[in-house]
Amino acid sequence: MPALPDKVEIKEEGPREGFQIESADIPTSRKIELIEALAETGLKYIQIVSFVNPNRVPGMADADEVVAGFRPKNGVNYMALWLNDKGFRRAVAAGKLHLEGKLTLYASDAFLMRNQNRTQAQQIAAQPELIKLYQGHDVPVRTGFITAAFGCNFEGDVSTQKVVSLVANLRDVAADYGENLEIIGLGDTMAWANPESIKRIVGAVQDANPDIDISLHLHDTRGLGLANAFAGLQMGVRHFDAAVGGLGGCPFAKHRGAAGNIATEDFVLMCHEMGVETGIDLEKLIDCAALAEDIVGHPLPGAVKSGGSLNAMRARIHGES
Amino acid sequence: MPALPDKVEIKEEGPREGFQIESADIPTSRKIELIEALAETGLKYIQIVSFVNPNRVPGMADADEVVAGFRPKNGVNYMALWLNDKGFRRAVAAGKLHLEGKLTLYASDAFLMRNQNRTQAQQIAAQPELIKLYQGHDVPVRTGFITAAFGCNFEGDVSTQKVVSLVANLRDVAADYGENLEIIGLGDTMAWANPESIKRIVGAVQDANPDIDISLHLHDTRGLGLANAFAGLQMGVRHFDAAVGGLGGCPFAKHRGAAGNIATEDFVLMCHEMGVETGIDLEKLIDCAALAEDIVGHPLPGAVKSGGSLNAMRARIHGES
Repeated sequence: MPALPDKVEIKEEGPREGFQIESADIPTSRKIELIEALAETGLKYIQIVSFVNPNRVPGMADADEVVAGFRPKNGVNYMALWLNDKGFRRAVAAGKLHLEGKLTLYASDAFLMRNQNRTQAQQIAAQPELIKLYQGHDVPVRTGFITAAFGCNFEGDVSTQKVVSLVANLRDVAADYGENLEIIGLGDTMAWANPESIKRIVGAVQDANPDIDISLHLHDTRGLGLANAFAGLQMGVRHFDAAVGGLGGCPFAKHRGAAGNIATEDFVLMCHEMGVETGIDLEKLIDCAALAEDIVGHPLPGAVKSGGSLNAMRARIHGES
Repeated sequence: MPALPDKVEIKEEGPREGFQIESADIPTSRKIELIEALAETGLKYIQIVSFVNPNRVPGMADADEVVAGFRPKNGVNYMALWLNDKGFRRAVAAGKLHLEGKLTLYASDAFLMRNQNRTQAQQIAAQPELIKLYQGHDVPVRTGFITAAFGCNFEGDVSTQKVVSLVANLRDVAADYGENLEIIGLGDTMAWANPESIKRIVGAVQDANPDIDISLHLHDTRGLGLANAFAGLQMGVRHFDAAVGGLGGCPFAKHRGAAGNIATEDFVLMCHEMGVETGIDLEKLIDCAALAEDIVGHPLPGAVKSGGSLNAMRARIHGES
């Protein structure tokens, strides 16, 4: 097992993960307030909106207004999610965004059929058109993503070999169209992973792809998110998605059991305490988590925004002594 | 690093950790309801009350009634906490309880002074009297415990060497009075640990004490509890304290930032998913977590009680196919 990495890169997905499941009544100005505050923390990648059907996702009906309204900060990459051509074209038209093409396969046939009405073969066959769409807009194709890479509510456990094969499929189809994937994202979409399965599956993908970076997207439905992230760090993973405050999930009320990502500030605290750099000002990030909670109007799952950082404790002890 | 243990032993502390900080209005009968439900899950050690000053801890004013009222189940050890002679004598008088003497030192001088108004030397000097008290009641002295072994809100970081020295002090004083400690408990009382410090400090204590078991008591104030528990498992630790539902903590409202233990059901799920046996029926334990939440009347931090177990998911998928 390699040593923990010296530094990790965190992609903040809170605004997108959060506001897409929250009430549509949240004012656009408040979404922008959070995005601008996040940009002051040292985060370099912030996914701020998704361009999706406003009838299905009312919380994202103002995605164009959010993009139009925020003041970008130099050096920060503002990103968006889309699910089809139409969404991608809206992202292009919006401007200001850092666009990256992502290719996605599903480790669960059942979830793929349910979500996209496609077989594995059809999903693979759909990738070239997507690559050509991105190439037509000079958008780099950097990441291949495996959804439900650790298990699925509709199919159950996923075999390590299946994930490794899908990664090979993704790299092959990208290479066939002149793209070289730099990162393979493994999504624990429905929170089936445990630290040992993280090690097993990440290790197998690394062994088969020693030339490529892995990123982890870890939902925290069963409380194992940070343990899984630690297992990823132990495997040398240097790219993580996270959501400030744990936006996108909430342990109770109407969001009971909803599956948020790991809370960015909790992950950052864990990294810093272990000597893993993130480039992020944790105290500012904690303020963002409190802001996010204020904006959504209900408690969010992240712990450190309540528990406080240890460096703040150390400063207080040092100041008193 | 050794392989994960095949099996762990969990001491359930939820009733004690929880009801001591909750409203005193919770009926005794409901506390007993939870204790009796927990005894049906396979848990072998359940800490059910603390015998403390009812003026300071109103939620434990009915400790004697709780002990008098519950129906014990064969094979389950019902335990109690006490902080002084008076509390211990109440525990003896209560009957029905599995009594174990525990010796405690503090890795934080500042916290020891604050909590017990003693120096380290005074705390060590106080142990023989305690041992003799236990011996006078034929109560075995099995565990030595180090409070704040990973850091302290009043003193800051704790050196590994200090913990190792305190463990040696504890073992020496026990041996001087004819007691052989079987377990050294390391308490992350104020949630300062991270997975790497768990590995470092547990490893150092193991190296100096290859003949003794370690137990971990992990508060989850900063969300790192399960990651720390995983690090403990990686070090071969086989004894863990936990609290059903995360009783003793709550992420918001009046309990905001309070420091509960790791939620038993979340830890059990993590263990089972990694092939580590606990002897516990997770589905019954999840029902207990829901019951605990109903009894305290506010959401509790545990995740799996909302997210559901993976074996329940697997059964549903299998049943449908």
